[in-house]
Amino acid sequence: MRNIAVIGAGSWGTALSMVLADNGYSVRLWSHRREQADEINERHINGKYLPGIMLPKNVAGTHDLEAALDGANAVLLVVPAKAMREVLGRVREHLAGPMLFIHGVKGIEPGTFKRMSEVIEEEIPKKFRKAVVVLSGPSHAEEVSLRHPTTVAVASVNTAAAKKAQDLFFNHYFRVYTNEDIVGVEIGGALKNIIALGAGISDGLGYGDNAKAALITRGLAEISRLGTKLGARPLTFIGLTGMGDLIVTCTSVHSRNWRAGNLLGKGRKLSEVLSEMGMVVEGVRTAEAAYALSKREKVEMPITEAIYQVLFENKNPKEAVDELMGRDKKDEIAALSESLSDPAPHD
Amino acid sequence: MRNIAVIGAGSWGTALSMVLADNGYSVRLWSHRREQADEINERHINGKYLPGIMLPKNVAGTHDLEAALDGANAVLLVVPAKAMREVLGRVREHLAGPMLFIHGVKGIEPGTFKRMSEVIEEEIPKKFRKAVVVLSGPSHAEEVSLRHPTTVAVASVNTAAAKKAQDLFFNHYFRVYTNEDIVGVEIGGALKNIIALGAGISDGLGYGDNAKAALITRGLAEISRLGTKLGARPLTFIGLTGMGDLIVTCTSVHSRNWRAGNLLGKGRKLSEVLSEMGMVVEGVRTAEAAYALSKREKVEMPITEAIYQVLFENKNPKEAVDELMGRDKKDEIAALSESLSDPAPHD
Repeated sequence: MRNIAVIGAGSWGTALSMVLADNGYSVRLWSHRREQADEINERHINGKYLPGIMLPKNVAGTHDLEAALDGANAVLLVVPAKAMREVLGRVREHLAGPMLFIHGVKGIEPGTFKRMSEVIEEEIPKKFRKAVVVLSGPSHAEEVSLRHPTTVAVASVNTAAAKKAQDLFFNHYFRVYTNEDIVGVEIGGALKNIIALGAGISDGLGYGDNAKAALITRGLAEISRLGTKLGARPLTFIGLTGMGDLIVTCTSVHSRNWRAGNLLGKGRKLSEVLSEMGMVVEGVRTAEAAYALSKREKVEMPITEAIYQVLFENKNPKEAVDELMGRDKKDEIAALSESLSDPAPHD
Repeated sequence: MRNIAVIGAGSWGTALSMVLADNGYSVRLWSHRREQADEINERHINGKYLPGIMLPKNVAGTHDLEAALDGANAVLLVVPAKAMREVLGRVREHLAGPMLFIHGVKGIEPGTFKRMSEVIEEEIPKKFRKAVVVLSGPSHAEEVSLRHPTTVAVASVNTAAAKKAQDLFFNHYFRVYTNEDIVGVEIGGALKNIIALGAGISDGLGYGDNAKAALITRGLAEISRLGTKLGARPLTFIGLTGMGDLIVTCTSVHSRNWRAGNLLGKGRKLSEVLSEMGMVVEGVRTAEAAYALSKREKVEMPITEAIYQVLFENKNPKEAVDELMGRDKKDEIAALSESLSDPAPHD
């Protein structure tokens, strides 16, 4: 396998293209904007998303989806969650034979509340896909583009496919673990953005590191509680794509979700925050999806519920956090046992 | 119970005294320095350890251990791990009846590699102790003294004693969970300081958030691996005293352990770092203890071993981190299963 199509030229798609190029693959990086594809080809940069970074010569930009996919053995999808289904519809038109589908998207489809791998399976006929793999973990794109040491996981129900994806990406600065639990990896990656909003709110209220650490810890427990109900393995949530990614997202001021939460904690309204930031805050949509899923699955998620109320029901952030603190005296292990020690339904 | 003796007037002992005082208890806070006890009594401050903070009037300072313990129903020990045994020997001389022993110390006794509750059980005759409880969790003393929301756990083999300790400390800004796993709580609290050293080293090398998150995640897995071998419950390590405290310690620039690691990562020698910091760096001693325990218990702890080699065998920090990154291609769940899914021996 020498040719790989990367669909989506944001910071993460571009950084992953660099990893593949460093590993000797020919990468065709598709952008929905022609000028961006031209810039990648002519100047070997992606000025908007990875300013200051030179791309390897074996990353070619293209605005032509057919050209990107022609002769490729694997396709890596890195597009916003809400755009995934539409992009797959267009990808489908250009498929000739079976291909390995990998995605690096941390989100849930709005409205359907489906995971990205489910959307791929629905939109790509079986004869055109060898397997579906998700790549996730604690990974700021900017650091990967600087070849800073990074560790991620690739997950698939198809073990051989996960190993194939591991081989594609693994190198001296990009360490890749395999994992069989695609449900857990996708749920952890998506829902961490909600907790990052919460961490930002707590910081915006001026509550400090103790409160934030408690929020992250209890937040992971409730993500795990929902995830295991949906079929994930509890262990996945204490790995790189659960705890690891949660830490990076909640403690970095570069996280959009943290920044949005921070402004909310300082008393700003959601509409103001979103228009001021002028870009997608994935955690806002994910909070809506997770809240709906918690009701549907009858899983207690007090932190997600509080954040949902702050976002969509105009609840006062301080009141929401104070209510979380004021809950009954509990036994810690009993509270955690409800979540992380539950065996997954398929175990 | 109205009188509580707090032994040790560092920042954490003083902050916990304030919580108890806020809850209506009469606190006698013992300091080994007479001037400090006088300052607490006369000016209601502890200028060295909690500058700018006014102590409640029901916190009385004393340099007299007998006076501190006289009529107290509970004693809270907050002294350096290496001083615990000697302090207990002096406490023992003034005991009249059975008392509840609580400690808030995050360390292991040098040389014996014993947990603090083991040292208490060895030094205090059974007739003088109702039970032994540890209080631990993500808790910068400075934030507690400002009444910022904080969440901790109290653990004991004696459930009633843990609930008693929960009642003593619980209030609107200090949320306390009970936990039956004293081994897990003590091991997690002590060993997180090693990972904080590692996080500092990684940051000192300029490696970024991705590497640090991976180190924290893999670090917790190996702490859990050792802890379960010593009799802890795996779930404890993903709770407040494991993951929660680890996050606070590894992501705060106020952590001494992180700062020491940071200097090591920048190429300084351990002896220089310690003399420059001029205070105890608990993680350095704990790394020695954990390394010895991992050999004794035959538990694989690659991160602890790497940090031990940097500290005591003059290993180059960059080489150590690069070796950790270069390990074989692995399955994540298999690696985690070795640790966190193992049932504890007593389960």
